[in-house]
Amino acid sequence: MTKDKLTYTIFGINGCAAVLESKKYKILDIIIQSGGQAERDGQITHTLTSLGGRRNLQKKTQFKSNFGKWRSQGIIVRFEGQIASALPSFKNDSGNIGLLALDRIEDPQNLGQIIRTAECAGIQGIIIPKHESCGITDTVIQVSQGAFTQVPIYQVTNLHQTLNNLKKEEFWIVAMENGLKAQAWHKIDYTGKILIIVGSEGYGIKKLVLDNCDFQSTIPMQGKTNSLNVSAAVSAVLFERLRQISS
Amino acid sequence: MTKDKLTYTIFGINGCAAVLESKKYKILDIIIQSGGQAERDGQITHTLTSLGGRRNLQKKTQFKSNFGKWRSQGIIVRFEGQIASALPSFKNDSGNIGLLALDRIEDPQNLGQIIRTAECAGIQGIIIPKHESCGITDTVIQVSQGAFTQVPIYQVTNLHQTLNNLKKEEFWIVAMENGLKAQAWHKIDYTGKILIIVGSEGYGIKKLVLDNCDFQSTIPMQGKTNSLNVSAAVSAVLFERLRQISS
Repeated sequence: MTKDKLTYTIFGINGCAAVLESKKYKILDIIIQSGGQAERDGQITHTLTSLGGRRNLQKKTQFKSNFGKWRSQGIIVRFEGQIASALPSFKNDSGNIGLLALDRIEDPQNLGQIIRTAECAGIQGIIIPKHESCGITDTVIQVSQGAFTQVPIYQVTNLHQTLNNLKKEEFWIVAMENGLKAQAWHKIDYTGKILIIVGSEGYGIKKLVLDNCDFQSTIPMQGKTNSLNVSAAVSAVLFERLRQISS
Repeated sequence: MTKDKLTYTIFGINGCAAVLESKKYKILDIIIQSGGQAERDGQITHTLTSLGGRRNLQKKTQFKSNFGKWRSQGIIVRFEGQIASALPSFKNDSGNIGLLALDRIEDPQNLGQIIRTAECAGIQGIIIPKHESCGITDTVIQVSQGAFTQVPIYQVTNLHQTLNNLKKEEFWIVAMENGLKAQAWHKIDYTGKILIIVGSEGYGIKKLVLDNCDFQSTIPMQGKTNSLNVSAAVSAVLFERLRQISS
């Protein structure tokens, strides 16, 4: 786990509001375009002034020259803090606890979408290996639309060791993998304490990790295009879990 | 429905192979980077030479200067054809037929992802209004990863009228909409002839269209982030349909 305080930049009303409202980070700057969409919205301006941070109103020409390439809605927040934390113990927790582990997801768009989907699907935490995976970048937090402020993101050094620890805490481990042992995704029981592992589009799940899983789950492709985007696959599985625990 | 023959550009091995193998389009150019990934792969080279099209081998410097901003894997295909067609009659079809209609989806990334997901989930066709929606652009076909060559895309002038016609052909119409009448997405019966309508992230489904639907289906958000990406929502619903028709 990193101990560094890192600096991030997020833009757009929803993302900036999520960061400000979470009160989890040190707000460095709130940069607003004079006459832009955010400034024209009184509610946003009110939220900003009440939540603090150095407010920096920029003329349209200056703002556009600094941030024109982004769809910023006229607002940028720069903040400092730790987004990822260390994995806590779930030993004393019971009931439906769903964790999602990502093995070597490298594309920040996919990682951001997965964080957003996981938060909407009621996942209790996302586990990301510290190495060989996309880090928590500005693109990741931007695409997540503020979801990173709500769903815990846990960085671990060794995913294999993490699985062993979670097994001792009575988690069942389900790998999303198109192998011979795999069952259709909806035939798996996702109730109780469950860790779902998803691999990268290019490389899948590491063999050592895969061998340590209790179940393999697959989504059989119905067409000729033989690969679903990894974030679409995650959505299908996490909402199947939600269906099962809601039924 | 457009009668124009349009010209498209697609890059990357999977997308180019899908276009060439479908044999549905007139291949204008196959542009290959000398010494690039595609050229080094003998299978790809074989596929290309057997499927025709004017082969244009470019030196690395020339290729990079023309297409360097794309992750092309050293191959570009330019082709001509009609990707969208007119909606046929399904009157004489029976069994599980799933259509997906998109009302005012404007983002080409989302449209491309939805086409890819729909093809993987065994949808029989995607209906797109001709106006107020993202057209079939190079970005859309690129993001779809070749799925546009397999799942039929139907362009219609009037979505409301299209619903009326499909109802006469015994389709049930399900709107994805977070309204008072909505049921949880997995409580809806998606077997048989079903049209699922999804609205844009910004505007939802047009009222006239919504009023004409038989059921409203919603995915209740579990977190604080109150919106799932539209392509993630589509994935959840289409794979719930696939679960139901596979069970």
